[in-house]
Amino acid sequence: MERLDQQMNFILEVDKLKSIIRQNYLMDGSRRENDADHSWHLALMCAILSEHANEKINVVKTITMVLIHDLVEIDAGDTYAYDELANVSKRDRERKAADRIFHLLPEDQAAEIRSLWDEFEEGSTPEAKFANTLDKMLPLLLNAGSDGKSWKEHGVTLSQVLKRNEKTHEGSEALWEYELGIINKHVANGNLINQ
Amino acid sequence: MERLDQQMNFILEVDKLKSIIRQNYLMDGSRRENDADHSWHLALMCAILSEHANEKINVVKTITMVLIHDLVEIDAGDTYAYDELANVSKRDRERKAADRIFHLLPEDQAAEIRSLWDEFEEGSTPEAKFANTLDKMLPLLLNAGSDGKSWKEHGVTLSQVLKRNEKTHEGSEALWEYELGIINKHVANGNLINQ
Repeated sequence: MERLDQQMNFILEVDKLKSIIRQNYLMDGSRRENDADHSWHLALMCAILSEHANEKINVVKTITMVLIHDLVEIDAGDTYAYDELANVSKRDRERKAADRIFHLLPEDQAAEIRSLWDEFEEGSTPEAKFANTLDKMLPLLLNAGSDGKSWKEHGVTLSQVLKRNEKTHEGSEALWEYELGIINKHVANGNLINQ
Repeated sequence: MERLDQQMNFILEVDKLKSIIRQNYLMDGSRRENDADHSWHLALMCAILSEHANEKINVVKTITMVLIHDLVEIDAGDTYAYDELANVSKRDRERKAADRIFHLLPEDQAAEIRSLWDEFEEGSTPEAKFANTLDKMLPLLLNAGSDGKSWKEHGVTLSQVLKRNEKTHEGSEALWEYELGIINKHVANGNLINQ
């Protein structure tokens, strides 16, 4: 039973992801999103939108990658995309978290999930590029859908969004083109500051 | 662009799953779980625990199944497992919801997702059996982890839990054996009424 016990300890520990709160709101503006909400939505997007990846991707690998990509935030917390100071220490905090959380699993699965997380962070395989594209796209969709609620709270500018999304086209030119249409609309209506 | 527009309409519509509140609590008892939290947790369990399925399963199919299995609750609402009256009308309400929500997608994907949902509801393939096993197991784990919080609120009995789980062994004998250990412990400590 040792193997199943280790797996169950991991399954129970990651329940904490549901309490990690992100900056962006649900589309109806009723509350901020949590990391489990976000990871579910990304996984479903991956299942529905994989045909738009620039390169052919392994779908189950990409879905598993997005399901686990934020688990490190259980220890390291959510780092807001546009908080430059917090982003400096992010990498170290998240690596320590990966060392603890993934290693609750049996050794073979710990190595597999750690490798998937490293691949997501590195962002150079077709799967990691597509996962990163979705991870950047989803908060933009929700921000747009909630009339720019968290953009306005933080005074986010067009150049910040473009810098944040400088690699989005690498995962999917089609989705990036779609995103650009949304960005332009929200610059025009003032939800994103035009600078 | 019509195909991508349809896909994006679906992606935005399903954001509402995050606002469908279930009866069970997070393990720390801080709040009730929502359907997106739940679906994410199931998908990750599927990735980690698939080796325990009684029969070999297609993992990406099973994960996709659990990612979409509760979308009908956007229209039909969550029906508490032990609310017998509400469960009578559940099937009709959920079918109407499936007709609307899945058909936001392009026709081929709508048919594919509808078929996956029907398969989950039918519960007769190896994938549907395993998905149903996880769907029954997760709230039990969270109830056990929160010291039986929602069991005690609703006065849930052992016989209700056993009836609810009468098919759990069909997906995985190993997980069912693990669950039985938890159930016995919570009958012994009084969190589940012994009748």
